[in-house]
Amino acid sequence: MRAGDLVEPFPTVGLSTDALTAARTIGEHRLPGLIVLDDDGAPYTVLGGSQVLRFMIPGYIQDDPTLARVYDEDASDKLLHKLSSRTVADLLPRRQDRDELPVVDADATTVEVAAVMAQLHSPVVAVLQDGLVLGAVTVSRLFEHLFPDLPSDRRGRDE
Amino acid sequence: MRAGDLVEPFPTVGLSTDALTAARTIGEHRLPGLIVLDDDGAPYTVLGGSQVLRFMIPGYIQDDPTLARVYDEDASDKLLHKLSSRTVADLLPRRQDRDELPVVDADATTVEVAAVMAQLHSPVVAVLQDGLVLGAVTVSRLFEHLFPDLPSDRRGRDE
Repeated sequence: MRAGDLVEPFPTVGLSTDALTAARTIGEHRLPGLIVLDDDGAPYTVLGGSQVLRFMIPGYIQDDPTLARVYDEDASDKLLHKLSSRTVADLLPRRQDRDELPVVDADATTVEVAAVMAQLHSPVVAVLQDGLVLGAVTVSRLFEHLFPDLPSDRRGRDE
Repeated sequence: MRAGDLVEPFPTVGLSTDALTAARTIGEHRLPGLIVLDDDGAPYTVLGGSQVLRFMIPGYIQDDPTLARVYDEDASDKLLHKLSSRTVADLLPRRQDRDELPVVDADATTVEVAAVMAQLHSPVVAVLQDGLVLGAVTVSRLFEHLFPDLPSDRRGRDE
């Protein structure tokens, strides 16, 4: 079994994708983030939902989230507007704070995929073929393959 | 809108849950990890899938994942057996390396949930009521609420 056999579609955005579209894409998919591609379509970094929130939420509230209770609906709406006319590039942290996007080739073995996830403490790896992103393998997809005998019968065989 | 309105079921395990069951639960759900409860049912930490892999994969392969290519099927199976007769407590890193499990009360506002996710760089927060875990709010669930107008019509209104 190779990475290319386990790969699943994973949402990608470009550096110039508008920030609101990126946030909506995270909400639409049940995934914690997106793969960001550079202008050549090569994988660049991963944009986690919490990073979008770090951009939106003022620093003093991140330091003490209980202060958020003073925000009424109007003030909350203003936070959302911080994403308007911004791009994905604006949301990314400074280079040294960026999450490294783990990548493997489509012919990587499952142990290699596991080792990359373990090394980078990442729940997802992008899968490349000829330099382009085919999609990603998530840790739950990998475990579904590695540990197929479920303790319950809640899941169908072909799901 | 409060955390209690956005909360969804989230898989939990105990410290004495066997490691293989925990790994299978991660594979069964399309989530990157599990909430670990202590013996009193209070939230203790979060067990990410990548942490399970850090336990399974030898350190020298984590340091250089290309070495994984020498693993044949038999050797790969031996890695899986490392989970046998282990418990969740065995998989957890030393206390100082443990991922902090963000928690909010059920009456936390959406801005407070967002601030906690931003502060701890977490894609999920556990939601407590009277000290017990009701479930969790994921960043994608929060974004689905905050950014409801989807750019495409791929998602049904009631999904």
